[in-house]
This record gives sequence, C-alpha cells and structure tokens, in this order.
Amino acid sequence: MAKRITILGSTGSVGENTLDLIRHAKPGEFTVTCLTAHTNAVKLAKQALEFKPQNIVLSDESQKDYLRDALAGTGIEIGFGRMALIEAGRLEADFVMAAIVGAAGLQPTLAAVQQGCYIGLANKECLVCAGVLFMQCAQQYGATILPVDSEHNAIFQVLNAERPDEVRKLILTASGGPFRQFSKQQLENASPKQALAHPVWAMGDKISIDSASLMNKGLELIEASYLFDTPQEQIDIIIHPQSIIHSMVEYVDGSVLAQLGSPDMRTPIAYALAWPARMETSVKPLDLAAIARLDFELPDTEKFPALGLARNALITGGAAPTVLNASNEIAVAAFLAGRIKFTGITDCCDNVLNVFENEPGFAKPLEAIEQVLDIDGRARETASAIIAKQGLG
Amino acid sequence: MAKRITILGSTGSVGENTLDLIRHAKPGEFTVTCLTAHTNAVKLAKQALEFKPQNIVLSDESQKDYLRDALAGTGIEIGFGRMALIEAGRLEADFVMAAIVGAAGLQPTLAAVQQGCYIGLANKECLVCAGVLFMQCAQQYGATILPVDSEHNAIFQVLNAERPDEVRKLILTASGGPFRQFSKQQLENASPKQALAHPVWAMGDKISIDSASLMNKGLELIEASYLFDTPQEQIDIIIHPQSIIHSMVEYVDGSVLAQLGSPDMRTPIAYALAWPARMETSVKPLDLAAIARLDFELPDTEKFPALGLARNALITGGAAPTVLNASNEIAVAAFLAGRIKFTGITDCCDNVLNVFENEPGFAKPLEAIEQVLDIDGRARETASAIIAKQGLG
Repeated sequence: MAKRITILGSTGSVGENTLDLIRHAKPGEFTVTCLTAHTNAVKLAKQALEFKPQNIVLSDESQKDYLRDALAGTGIEIGFGRMALIEAGRLEADFVMAAIVGAAGLQPTLAAVQQGCYIGLANKECLVCAGVLFMQCAQQYGATILPVDSEHNAIFQVLNAERPDEVRKLILTASGGPFRQFSKQQLENASPKQALAHPVWAMGDKISIDSASLMNKGLELIEASYLFDTPQEQIDIIIHPQSIIHSMVEYVDGSVLAQLGSPDMRTPIAYALAWPARMETSVKPLDLAAIARLDFELPDTEKFPALGLARNALITGGAAPTVLNASNEIAVAAFLAGRIKFTGITDCCDNVLNVFENEPGFAKPLEAIEQVLDIDGRARETASAIIAKQGLG
Repeated sequence: MAKRITILGSTGSVGENTLDLIRHAKPGEFTVTCLTAHTNAVKLAKQALEFKPQNIVLSDESQKDYLRDALAGTGIEIGFGRMALIEAGRLEADFVMAAIVGAAGLQPTLAAVQQGCYIGLANKECLVCAGVLFMQCAQQYGATILPVDSEHNAIFQVLNAERPDEVRKLILTASGGPFRQFSKQQLENASPKQALAHPVWAMGDKISIDSASLMNKGLELIEASYLFDTPQEQIDIIIHPQSIIHSMVEYVDGSVLAQLGSPDMRTPIAYALAWPARMETSVKPLDLAAIARLDFELPDTEKFPALGLARNALITGGAAPTVLNASNEIAVAAFLAGRIKFTGITDCCDNVLNVFENEPGFAKPLEAIEQVLDIDGRARETASAIIAKQGLG
C-alpha cells in the first residue's frame, strides 16, 4: 500500500525537497493526498498537476480565480484561507510533513497530530513555542514525531528512546555561523549582508541571521529539550564549522553515536518519509577523505548571548521560550531593515523577557494553544515597542 | 538474575578489563562462572580469589601444585590443559567473553557458541581463519556474536542488521599506524622499535606490528566481511589518525552513522557485556572540543600491500584468509627477531599465498575446524621455510 502523504507548506524548500524524493521514489511507494501553500499559487498549481493530490489549500484567498482556472477539470478539491489550512491537517494521511514556517504552522500541525499519524516536523514553532503542549498532544493521540531539522533528525537516528536512562547527553553541533571568529567590536558593527553569508547551508534570511547570532542553535536547544524530554543541562552545544556531523548522543558506557552526511536536507527528509525504513536518495555520498578535516570548539557564550537566553528560557519554562522566539523574530526583522544593530537582536529579546517575567503565571506550563498565540502576539508587540522607543543601536 | 559470565582468557588485557567492569558494576548484575588462562597462574589465582568462580582452567599443566595450593579450601574446581579449556567453553553461562589470543581460541570459542549464548568476541582467528564456519555455527546454535574489537563494535552499534538492503557501505577507520607518513624507502628500513611505537593504542607486540603494516586493518576487513555478511567491495577503509571515530555505516539515504569515543577498550567490552542494554563505565567522556580536530585520508594501498592481500584473500575465499593470517604471524615474529625487513612481512604472506593457491580445493569453503587447523599449521611451516630459505631481508 502506498503511503499517503500530506505536505503542509509544499512550495517552500522542505516541501519541494519532499516532493523531489517522492518523484524519484519507487513507483507505488507514496501517493500525495494534500498540498498546501501560503501565497505561491503558481508553484502550487504546478505541483498539483504533477502529483495529483485529492486536495490542495492556499492561504491567500485573493488568488482563487487563478488556481481554479489552472486546475479546471482535474477533479482536485481546492480550499482557501486559514480554516481550510487547519482542515488540511485533518485529512486522512499516513504521513504529514509539517513544513509551514512560523506560528502559522502551529494549528494545522496540531490538527495533523490529532490524527495519530507520522508527522515529519520541520516547523520550529510547534516545539519552541508550545513544546510541552505539542508533545502531550502527540502522546495523547499516538502520533509519531519525526524531526526533519538536520540536528534533531541526527539525534533521532542514534537515540535509543526506549532506554532514556542510558543517555548521558545530547550534543548539538553548530556551524558557528559567519561571525564565529568575529571580535565583540566586529559583531556590533556587523551588517545584514555579512550575516546573510552562511558558510555551509543556503537558507532563508531569518534563519541565516539566527545562525549568525547562534539564536538558531538556542532555539534548537529548546526544541531538543522538549522533543527528547531532556533537561537543558544534559544538552551540550559544540561548534563544528564543517557541519558534517549533524549531532550526537553520548551514552553511559562512553559511546558517542553520531549521524554524519553531506549538508543536504533530502537526507533527513527521506529518513522521516521512509521511517522506520530507509529509502534511496541521490544525495551526494559523504566523502570524508575529500573533506579531510573536521574541527570542533566550544561556543563563546559571552560573544553569543543567544545560547544563554535559550538555556534560561528552558530553565524558566512556561511562556519564556514563546516570548524569546517572538521577540527574536521581530528583532531579526528590525536588524534586516537596518533599524537595530546585530547585537541589538539579543538585547531586544533580553528586554522583552524581562518585561514578561513580571507577569503572573509566566513560568507556569502553557495550557492551550490560544494562550500560546496570545503570548506570541503580545511579545511581538512589546518587542516592536521597545525597538521603536529605544532604537537599540 | 545475575548474568553468568565466563571469560576465556581472563589474564590478558580484554579479560582484565572485563573483570574491572564486573568489579564496578551494580551489585547482582554479574556473577563469574569460569575463568581461564594460558600460563599466568599467579594472576588467575588472584582473580579467582576475588571473583569466586565455580571453575577455573589453566592451560599450563606444570603449575598444578601452585594453583591447587593457592585456592585450597575455596571449593573452586580447577581444570588443566587443552581439553579442560574447551570444556570451559561448554560450562553453562549467559555470556562468554572469548578473549584467548590466536588459533588456540578457536575450539573453546566454538564450544561456547554451541551453548547458544551471548559471545563477546575478542578473538580474531574465529572470524579471520574460520569466518564462514564460525558464523554458520553461531546461526545453527542461536548464539549472538557481540564483537569487542573497537571497529566492529562501532559498526555493530550503528548497524541495523534487520535491514541489510538499506546499508550501502561499512567504513572501517584506521589510525594509519606509526608509518603513515613514511616513504617507501623508510618503510624498507623500519626497525621493530619504530614499528612498536603506536601513536594511539597501547597494544601487544604482534598487533602493533600489524597496525604498522596495516595488516591489522586487512584482518579486520576480513572479520567485518564475515561478521556482517558484507562483500569486501562494500567495505571501505579510511585513515583517521586520532582514532576517535571507531567506524561507520553508510546508508542508502545518505546518512552515515558512527560510533565515537575515547580510545578505551572498556567501552566496547561494556557494550558487549550489557547488550542489549548499556552499563555505566568510568571511561573518560569524549571531549571533542579538547581534541579540536579529526583528520581523514585514503590509505596508500601501494605503500601498504596488506590491504590488497586481505581484499584478495576475501575474493578468493576458502582457505586464503587462513593462510594469510598464519603466514603473517610467522613473518611478524621473524621481523621482531630481526630476521626479515619490515616490507618482508607482506612479501612473505604473498609468497605463501602463491604456494597454496595451487592446492586443489584452496578456494572451496572450509568445512571443518580440523581443516582450518591443518591449513593454519601448514601455512606456518611454509612461511618459516620461505623465510629460512630466502631470508626476505
């Protein structure tokens, strides 16, 4: 029986790579049930014509006519708008790739989780903003969360989840980003252009900046903590500029198990898609002799305060990770717009966290997704207000 | 219930490390059933007094009186000689550590395999000289072979044996030995003293020389091929001087899984002892940031012909690996005695293989352990004769 696949966010990079793997898989291995996109109606229509899903959904209602024309006579059902997106998560499938970027992915992914199917998780916010809630929901409905982020996928591949007592540490690797060897002075004056030049992975603007500030690794630390139910003090971060070892697990007997590979998202996506089996990919095989050398160093937590902010957010718990994530998004946008300095990003997050810390119940476990969305929204407003008022550089 | 442990070869380095792990394990986790040694009666007596096994065996019958006196009144049964050693393998146990060095370990280990218990395999000859026979025997009697050699243990830890079709390659790492950067000229004139100075592991003389000639890696290639039922063309060898990555498995999706750790035999021994669980050890945790750098390069197969000899022995099959191993042992002894040059070791092996190649049935699968012992003996004689006649120096 073919595995029925829904892709929430099929026109982004994870979505496209997922479809590429399906395109080249053995015939009959996968069938596409539903594809969704935010605004890219042209690409969505093209994908729908190729993969013939039963349903597609576009968030952007203004493009109804274009999409209906493009798919006239195909019999593909087309939905529009936010509610249709959530409904897409509920359509019966064996595997849902949750690849919608940002807080918008939260509700559709939760809808998919409630099916109790396999979830390829590429959306960060489900774990960063709603980690406890999300994992509780997955457990309640019997969904299997298969992380697609290369670091978490690496850990998932070498973690024996059935024997948590035998795990001593999770070790997340970080490329260190383009500012790894910058001085504090250079960091202050770093431009968006410099920050966007990631040494290994070609990524979107937001994640490139997060990689430069190490906030990306901070957010991954939060994700790992919730996903693998591991306290932050048992999660190490190590700088590994070549990004060949994607992450590791240290066991009580002294063994460290690692997943390595060429930096290509198709490997973790294929692992999630085919789990518990593995599927052939055309990813360039790892050639360690050609790479010749792998380096490692401890991160400079003073130069990169994002790591400390993330650890503290985990220690505080409750809404702290949600606030950190929201304020970071606003600050990154302000940095890209030239409104604050690079070092102002973490300053902004720190300030917003300080404001929220005084709210009663801030550290209490989040209880509902509406609460997450409310705090997320208010943290964004606070961040914007702080940036507008203080300038932060 | 405590796991009942027999150690065949308890006074060697693997045996001692095994007892050290048992000594520091949780109370009630292990009980020692039987210990055996070749000649070291003093150490065996000491171990017996500490671990109180039901039986001990010493190969060397000349020390009967000493051992009986030392253990008078303990109720420990003491056996002597070769037959008692084989009987020791038959004593009921849950786990037998097969740590006898050389061809002498073959029959006791096979006796243990016929119990159908867990076998910690540290003896090379079982796989190198009798690979097909040994694995057939393990399958027939339902024994589980848990490799203790750090490379094979690493592969065992990250290999999904239930899905062999998903494995693309096994990748054995090699330190490269002390002559990695020697010229051909330097190799010819290399002294035993130079060859014994291994950069990473402290080992016995024979294995140090094998490490210098890369014959050790050649023999491990043969072991891996039989143990994991993988043809030689699917097993790569890569030089990795720091010996931190102990070996790897490459999968069809592009993932490479690796086991890393401080170079300490207690980790693979603990993994075998506790399998399918893991036990706490006091092995120094891996500190990649302190190590800072891992290097990789392809082996120079022209400078180190041992790798080609081993691959050819696997391609030929039958008695070829047995002949290679036997002739190498004789040649290494001759090199250590100053009778042949370093490069004469592989020349000798090549010559002996050429002699045996003409024997009818040379490439046919070995059918009985007696045949293995016969060929092993004759290969040694041929090697000695060649060295005496030609000098190879």
